[in-house]
Amino acid sequence: MHIDTVEYVRRAIRSVPDWPKPGVVFRDITPVLQDPRTFRVLIDMFVYRYMRQRLDLVAGIDARGFILGAVLAYELNLGFVPVRKKGKLPFKTLAEEYSLEYGNATVEMHTDAVKPGQRVLLIDDLIATGGTMMAAAKLLQRLGANVVEAAAIIDLPELNGSAILKETGMPVFTVCSFTDAEP
Amino acid sequence: MHIDTVEYVRRAIRSVPDWPKPGVVFRDITPVLQDPRTFRVLIDMFVYRYMRQRLDLVAGIDARGFILGAVLAYELNLGFVPVRKKGKLPFKTLAEEYSLEYGNATVEMHTDAVKPGQRVLLIDDLIATGGTMMAAAKLLQRLGANVVEAAAIIDLPELNGSAILKETGMPVFTVCSFTDAEP
Repeated sequence: MHIDTVEYVRRAIRSVPDWPKPGVVFRDITPVLQDPRTFRVLIDMFVYRYMRQRLDLVAGIDARGFILGAVLAYELNLGFVPVRKKGKLPFKTLAEEYSLEYGNATVEMHTDAVKPGQRVLLIDDLIATGGTMMAAAKLLQRLGANVVEAAAIIDLPELNGSAILKETGMPVFTVCSFTDAEP
Repeated sequence: MHIDTVEYVRRAIRSVPDWPKPGVVFRDITPVLQDPRTFRVLIDMFVYRYMRQRLDLVAGIDARGFILGAVLAYELNLGFVPVRKKGKLPFKTLAEEYSLEYGNATVEMHTDAVKPGQRVLLIDDLIATGGTMMAAAKLLQRLGANVVEAAAIIDLPELNGSAILKETGMPVFTVCSFTDAEP
């Protein structure tokens, strides 16, 4: 069977109107994960992209980035490191604050999560404004890591996150994108 | 190379004293995940256990349960469904509240996450009092699922969670256990 893998995954993403607030359409990946075939097709697109790249670690962003990141780490024979929300990691941490629409948020990593010079693939489910991804990349760079690429399933190009990340010189990969107007 | 896989993983678990509060020793799995070999050995113990079982889905508990659960779902060709903390899921949800030492917590699942009769492996990183695992199992059962086993990496037997789960008739599997007295 030949399938258009991008379209196959994209069609399984559920659009939930007015969540988390009126006027916003949330792109929900749970139906993709729930079906063994769309889940496998999704993961394999990333595996094919990275299987010949020299990488040491996959860093997954709390919490949906853990799902994709952990499978990729296992499949690519790499270690997995979590980038967590504030207050979740028990050992010595390094923190990076970033702005949200209202207020700030903080991501943290263990200070011994990466060694200087290690090549890291940074992964989340979605790039919106890019704030979380950028803060996570800064954390990794402060620890001496080389962030090889920032990857996600979904890009929301109208929120400019992927463009802003690219402007900093960060390579970015996403499987598909959605515009606000799409129901 | 022959290794004692349980001891290999257990030795990589880091014990962090006085976290999240004085007198508690936190068992930290991040060093296991970070090393490609301990991570693979860990996952493979679960793969070997479940690869011949009839299962439809792996349900992983927010957030460390996502790491183990997602890899297992991929490796066993199953779907993955998240059991999330309150307010994280965008579609119609079912909620189950449970008691913590102080106050309550709530876990949620999408109402369409499982179909009646589906066989589900429930997974988290650790069983302490068993409250989260029990609440997640109840959610799955309310949705008509058959929870085949509740599995975790670490059991804290002095907190009685795994014993209480077993008393309800729930099969429980953990890779290793730690007692309070262990540094």
